[in-house]
Amino acid sequence: MQSIICFTSDFGLGDTWVGMCHAVIYRACPQARVVDLAHDIDPFDIRKAAAVAASGVWQLPEAIHLVVVDPGVGGGRRDLCVVTKRGSVLVGPDNGVLVPAIWRAGGIESAFSIVPAQLNFQLPLATFHARDVLAPAAAALACGVEPENIGEPVDPESLGASPFRIGYQEGEALVAEVVDVDRFGSVRLAISQEVMSGLNADPTHLEVSLGHLQMDVPFGRTFSDVSEGELVALFDSSGWLTLAVRLGSAADRLGIEPGSVARVRIGG
Amino acid sequence: MQSIICFTSDFGLGDTWVGMCHAVIYRACPQARVVDLAHDIDPFDIRKAAAVAASGVWQLPEAIHLVVVDPGVGGGRRDLCVVTKRGSVLVGPDNGVLVPAIWRAGGIESAFSIVPAQLNFQLPLATFHARDVLAPAAAALACGVEPENIGEPVDPESLGASPFRIGYQEGEALVAEVVDVDRFGSVRLAISQEVMSGLNADPTHLEVSLGHLQMDVPFGRTFSDVSEGELVALFDSSGWLTLAVRLGSAADRLGIEPGSVARVRIGG
Amino acid sequence: MQSIICFTSDFGLGDTWVGMCHAVIYRACPQARVVDLAHDIDPFDIRKAAAVAASGVWQLPEAIHLVVVDPGVGGGRRDLCVVTKRGSVLVGPDNGVLVPAIWRAGGIESAFSIVPAQLNFQLPLATFHARDVLAPAAAALACGVEPENIGEPVDPESLGASPFRIGYQEGEALVAEVVDVDRFGSVRLAISQEVMSGLNADPTHLEVSLGHLQMDVPFGRTFSDVSEGELVALFDSSGWLTLAVRLGSAADRLGIEPGSVARVRIGG
Repeated sequence: MQSIICFTSDFGLGDTWVGMCHAVIYRACPQARVVDLAHDIDPFDIRKAAAVAASGVWQLPEAIHLVVVDPGVGGGRRDLCVVTKRGSVLVGPDNGVLVPAIWRAGGIESAFSIVPAQLNFQLPLATFHARDVLAPAAAALACGVEPENIGEPVDPESLGASPFRIGYQEGEALVAEVVDVDRFGSVRLAISQEVMSGLNADPTHLEVSLGHLQMDVPFGRTFSDVSEGELVALFDSSGWLTLAVRLGSAADRLGIEPGSVARVRIGG
Repeated sequence: MQSIICFTSDFGLGDTWVGMCHAVIYRACPQARVVDLAHDIDPFDIRKAAAVAASGVWQLPEAIHLVVVDPGVGGGRRDLCVVTKRGSVLVGPDNGVLVPAIWRAGGIESAFSIVPAQLNFQLPLATFHARDVLAPAAAALACGVEPENIGEPVDPESLGASPFRIGYQEGEALVAEVVDVDRFGSVRLAISQEVMSGLNADPTHLEVSLGHLQMDVPFGRTFSDVSEGELVALFDSSGWLTLAVRLGSAADRLGIEPGSVARVRIGG
Repeated sequence: MQSIICFTSDFGLGDTWVGMCHAVIYRACPQARVVDLAHDIDPFDIRKAAAVAASGVWQLPEAIHLVVVDPGVGGGRRDLCVVTKRGSVLVGPDNGVLVPAIWRAGGIESAFSIVPAQLNFQLPLATFHARDVLAPAAAALACGVEPENIGEPVDPESLGASPFRIGYQEGEALVAEVVDVDRFGSVRLAISQEVMSGLNADPTHLEVSLGHLQMDVPFGRTFSDVSEGELVALFDSSGWLTLAVRLGSAADRLGIEPGSVARVRIGG
């Protein structure tokens, strides 16, 4: 049942890495289906991979999510398998890249440090744990192996830190980082519907401060709720509060990048 | 039998969108095979997506073609399912993106406006019909559901306009837009073999006017029919009349872009 | 058993070519699994495709490797099927692109020139042998057809020349071209572990000359064996001797490109 493996990495599509992980999975578990989310992520961009994985787990919780951006490969950091409270299974290095996906999937139910010797796979190459540890682990899980049989339990509190902070309330405002800018220029803030509900209101407009900008933005359902070229705030498929421009790029308009911090309050 | 779904979009490969559509299809119809044609299309570039889809349907008529470039998502435009006279099934938004593929597949046999409630899928998110309406529709069709069971019939004359015009005869010349420039720099004109046959001759050379250029171009079968660096006209796999430079880029050479208009006549 | 087809090309992901090859294979041999290695290779870059294919066959010898970078398509060059001494099966044009993969797979056991008429496929289009000759051949092989049944034997000595030379010993040094620069900026030299063993030592440092640079580089197992920003030499997953910078780009640091020539000797 849990045979879909969503795969995110910074491997690009100009080398063998993505394909080799596919091949390893197909061989170890032919019934698994590997679904590529994104591989076109800048090298070592943990923030972007974490944002994609969080969006993926939000949209498809009942799957295995394999996430590999791994600047520390071979240097002793742990390879994790995390089972979340909503039943998602996450596999990736212990460098924070899984943490936002854990938030979006209800928190940690149990976490394990993968032990390569338990995978019945070749000796791991020190430069390519994706192929030799993480993909084989995802394949084993896809074929029904229990997480506790591929690793040692780890303390959920011991995981590496997230590349960004989840939005939080400060007085009447929500403070949140820009998590991600998508290819259409939409700007996603680390504000889930759950965080948003802290404002205790059903807004028609939001007041957004971003750097030196102060904006009153209509809160809508879709890009077409405003006229061409106008800003709208909405929850898009990522599940994060998103600033978008109809038929344009909010990121270009606002001149912002991932990592900026916004303050959001009910407008009108 | 019709279980191949050819998928074209402007989603890129840096976010979750393409993968989520794959996952939706695999779940609803495990025996479907999704084949990605192109996702690396500029955001909102309906012309390019229409050109790719037309080339895809020309090469693989007996398939379902899912085409998503959808600047108007959520704004009330229809989601279409079109069955063509040659048996191809096209699924995409009603913004013209399917029209060139309809031409290449023999014209409309029947057309339907997809009714999400008939898809037995989750409530559509207003920003992501690809995942919640179009991909589920393609999956249902791949698993044998009849088009009339997922939507309401629509008048074939009511479809949104094509992003480009098909070539037409004017005196002894054919007038046609540049449909597409491929990554090798080959320039495709909206002239199918059928349109070409209007010239009533089996040419060895073509006279091509493009902007201020006037060229006599050998008409061949393949790039190697001319010397390195020379122009040749041929029908490539897209099924459109194509201007190419052997081991070079015709687009760079001629300085033209999609949307330019050419006049073609028998040369010699 | 040999149903994985690793696919490498310069087709990019903005047109129909890759997908059409997938579709052809799925139809002719539904049980085949196509694994995309790289399609994001510059048009006509035979060197890069050869490097990727060599790395692919090194990592996954027991597969069919379909490699298409084919500037001479339609011009009479042969379409090859090569069986290697380690049991890999390679399919691609006879322009040298398969040769480094042949080296990495133990050399030629037998080689054939594919005869389209023996493939039971449509007449080949002169511009698209990938779809009409090479992919159908790979599909037939994946479904158990013997190589001798799809082509005529050819003399292994008659194959087109490799785009790069394998490293060789000269006195106490190894001389080798830069085969490839990967997206992380790692620089791969045409030195396999076998070639390296010619130095008859188990080095801790290498002396590398590259252009006007003369460097003493620690020889390690992984990027993390040195401090951030420092150079390390290692054998990465490609199986070639690789110069890397921890959390940085060796190519940028050294200012080199594929095709440069390096001299390597035991350092200390």
